Amino acid sequence: MSNKSKTSTGNFFEDFRVGQEIRHATPRTLTEADSALNIALTGSRYALFSADSFAQNCGLPGAPIDPLLVFHTVFGKTVPDISLNAVANLGYADGRFLTPVYPGDTLRAVSEVIGVKENSNGKTGVVWVRTTGYNQENREVLTYVRWVMVNKKDTSKPAPATVVPELPSAVKTSSLPRPAFSSSGYEFVLAGSPFGFEDYEIGEKIDHVDAFTVEEAEHQIATRLYQNTAKVHFNQHEQASSRFGRRLIYGGVAISLARSLAFNGLGNAAEIIAINAGSHVNPLFAGDTVFAWSEVLDKHDLRDGMGALRLRLVATKNRPCTDFPYKDGEGKHLSDVILDFDYWAAIPSRS
Amino acid sequence: MSNKSKTSTGNFFEDFRVGQEIRHATPRTLTEADSALNIALTGSRYALFSADSFAQNCGLPGAPIDPLLVFHTVFGKTVPDISLNAVANLGYADGRFLTPVYPGDTLRAVSEVIGVKENSNGKTGVVWVRTTGYNQENREVLTYVRWVMVNKKDTSKPAPATVVPELPSAVKTSSLPRPAFSSSGYEFVLAGSPFGFEDYEIGEKIDHVDAFTVEEAEHQIATRLYQNTAKVHFNQHEQASSRFGRRLIYGGVAISLARSLAFNGLGNAAEIIAINAGSHVNPLFAGDTVFAWSEVLDKHDLRDGMGALRLRLVATKNRPCTDFPYKDGEGKHLSDVILDFDYWAAIPSRS
Amino acid sequence: MSNKSKTSTGNFFEDFRVGQEIRHATPRTLTEADSALNIALTGSRYALFSADSFAQNCGLPGAPIDPLLVFHTVFGKTVPDISLNAVANLGYADGRFLTPVYPGDTLRAVSEVIGVKENSNGKTGVVWVRTTGYNQENREVLTYVRWVMVNKKDTSKPAPATVVPELPSAVKTSSLPRPAFSSSGYEFVLAGSPFGFEDYEIGEKIDHVDAFTVEEAEHQIATRLYQNTAKVHFNQHEQASSRFGRRLIYGGVAISLARSLAFNGLGNAAEIIAINAGSHVNPLFAGDTVFAWSEVLDKHDLRDGMGALRLRLVATKNRPCTDFPYKDGEGKHLSDVILDFDYWAAIPSRS
Repeated sequence: MSNKSKTSTGNFFEDFRVGQEIRHATPRTLTEADSALNIALTGSRYALFSADSFAQNCGLPGAPIDPLLVFHTVFGKTVPDISLNAVANLGYADGRFLTPVYPGDTLRAVSEVIGVKENSNGKTGVVWVRTTGYNQENREVLTYVRWVMVNKKDTSKPAPATVVPELPSAVKTSSLPRPAFSSSGYEFVLAGSPFGFEDYEIGEKIDHVDAFTVEEAEHQIATRLYQNTAKVHFNQHEQASSRFGRRLIYGGVAISLARSLAFNGLGNAAEIIAINAGSHVNPLFAGDTVFAWSEVLDKHDLRDGMGALRLRLVATKNRPCTDFPYKDGEGKHLSDVILDFDYWAAIPSRS
Repeated sequence: MSNKSKTSTGNFFEDFRVGQEIRHATPRTLTEADSALNIALTGSRYALFSADSFAQNCGLPGAPIDPLLVFHTVFGKTVPDISLNAVANLGYADGRFLTPVYPGDTLRAVSEVIGVKENSNGKTGVVWVRTTGYNQENREVLTYVRWVMVNKKDTSKPAPATVVPELPSAVKTSSLPRPAFSSSGYEFVLAGSPFGFEDYEIGEKIDHVDAFTVEEAEHQIATRLYQNTAKVHFNQHEQASSRFGRRLIYGGVAISLARSLAFNGLGNAAEIIAINAGSHVNPLFAGDTVFAWSEVLDKHDLRDGMGALRLRLVATKNRPCTDFPYKDGEGKHLSDVILDFDYWAAIPSRS
Repeated sequence: MSNKSKTSTGNFFEDFRVGQEIRHATPRTLTEADSALNIALTGSRYALFSADSFAQNCGLPGAPIDPLLVFHTVFGKTVPDISLNAVANLGYADGRFLTPVYPGDTLRAVSEVIGVKENSNGKTGVVWVRTTGYNQENREVLTYVRWVMVNKKDTSKPAPATVVPELPSAVKTSSLPRPAFSSSGYEFVLAGSPFGFEDYEIGEKIDHVDAFTVEEAEHQIATRLYQNTAKVHFNQHEQASSRFGRRLIYGGVAISLARSLAFNGLGNAAEIIAINAGSHVNPLFAGDTVFAWSEVLDKHDLRDGMGALRLRLVATKNRPCTDFPYKDGEGKHLSDVILDFDYWAAIPSRS
């Protein structure tokens, strides 16, 4: 038995078949420590994930784990199997947070291959997977689709039959998960914003003003916390000869930093309940400063004093967002835009 | 409703009125994770906050949260309301730690404006606030006064009536809180220092010998852990055009690093019970190396085998403290002194 | 009483006597936070230390603390007494993990001096200590021998009688501690590797492929987490005038990073049960990228579906390990090899 066989080199495009189920490695118990590290690494200030007593007043047993941390954890598990040889992470769709996660819960992840399409160059292909995270009671906590461009290892292998899954452009309001928290005991003053569901208008744009400069140590610590092993984030020896010459920051770090900045303007929209779409449109590097702005794309009344905002979260690097930078005249993202993220968040009504 | 109204830009000098009460946002449950991060980020080695069994032998249910971490947490909550537009953090006074904080406790903060004084330039003013931290049972855990110089937004606004609060130059010995721990089961060997209350003399100076070089990632992670949002610590894009051209390190990071260094010489003076005064006299930047020395300013017998030392903690950057660097001939702090901090710490007697 | 007497300057060669017992300071309660930080700082993905449910299926009450984290914690306590004035950390021997450590356990450390030998230059000497870590129930959790070269303070002091302890070149199979976990409920798919005890052959070499670039903030945070105070890791002001001009990374950080990389190829060999030998053969600095490879040196059947692999773990800096870089023709470690570590790990059998 040679050493080659012991080391995993990840899957290549030709290794994926539609219908294939992949059970990912390294289950992970999330604890209070992950919540504290989430605050320390992203600067999150949403009261719901910061304070047990605040969450208890909203009918929860204690502060749940931030859904984005759940997302990064589940995502991280899929990397060795899905995207170790990925050229690009192309998109997300139909993400829904189905069960709140609390300190002590253990997450594992399973992916099903739902689409494959070889590119015309014959060297790469696109793979679609639906990934589902489960807790220790085998309840689904999160499900989402992502698609990645993956290298072929053996370009002589024939192209598989193309299967492109139909995906919703956004999670339908009828499919929106109910948020974990109840609005009845919600304390707006402690949450840090007086604005409720009724105060936001479709089309409204919010500049989140604040900014975070990211260091190598910060994104590496965060990405390891998520047990995400993609080499581009960690191996400067190899990255030095890459196109960028540098380590790339995991896109999830950008999402979390931008959502943390979004506190200033969306302080009560703490709980993400669905992910509609997301693209990492330009790379983020250590030393860059992340700014963010949001646009209200849609609203949906969840009743019982609760609503949902569909939000576009745009993050930039080294560019303040007072003028809401987004796309150029040809519909292409500006070069200093790094993230275009579309999600639903729950928000209580004031009344 | 415009986007401007959703984003908080903090209070300006003219927004503060004497008597005003401000309930700060984002309550925070401190956990074992915060204690571990406190050790990892500051290098603290005080046994009382490091080991449950040690604390239990001193009559506590387990290791409490380091009072300085309590202070930074409470302080952090006040930043968005008090000092987002601050030019300078001028001082602290009359700080008292009233109830020990344990993992699982949730802290919130309330400030009362107790003084305002517009500066003669008409562009800035000094605001005094008394901040009190409460736990989830609404017990006061910490109270202190700080004063900051804050920008006016509208310089045409008339100056308010000047109110300057009377503040003690030091917490009186009769007002000193009782430390949480009892000296009866205290183990000097495990604490790492043989010196008790009776071994320290007023006027004695101690060079703490060791040093820490601070990195950007370290102070940013720490300051985010405290949910302190002051932009000067995080936004290099903006700081590049500031007077210093760099991010400023939160003064609380300097206090905690210096107190951690003070372990070597004050190993049994773990528990800070009161803060008399404190000034951040020169800025600290990433890449600087922090040294520290202490002077015993006063002693007070707390009885039952316990005493209190009033200590001046001086921290420097890039300068060892063998010669106790402090002030020049004109009473001005030397340029490599960064911190002048005056506090009371409890310390057990040997006998 | 002068200030000198309050500050510890550590022990010098002439301070050590064979038979001397040193009880080290600062007991430490390890918690879930330390496990999370271990993952965040080292990138560990071994399921046994990551997931309570996985560990429970293996008969444990929950995920234990990674033995290497136990080692670093116990080691860290010894630094102020043993190696503050050390010139070099020369080696480890006869390390055995005797009791698993769980979140909530408190560790303390005691060392016995078991050998001294002055060097012929009269300026330094070698000190051998056996260090034992205890939990809060005074059960031994870890014992190991290390030896260090320490400066003499007073070179006029006569040399002590030379005592060189006899040490095993490796922990004997008859002395191997039983691993904590049982193989009966072990889930290979969740652990991320299909290979069991029977799949590894003596002489087999494994390139672990992946790599981590280390930042100053990362190694400093890790080394402070272990409450290891050695100045060379933290004080750039002083290191600037040292031979290297830079801070040295604590060798334990290199061990943990290499073991984390070893997951890719040794995913089921999670639990280290013994340390045979270890040398930090070249210094590691921030900015270096760590690679690793392993060689199976020996195998031992532990029965009941469990075996032990004796493994050589070699780490390099800035050099991939496809060709298993190790020593030159004269038996000297190559200049880009940083670690030569010899240990026993438990691994379940597939059948």
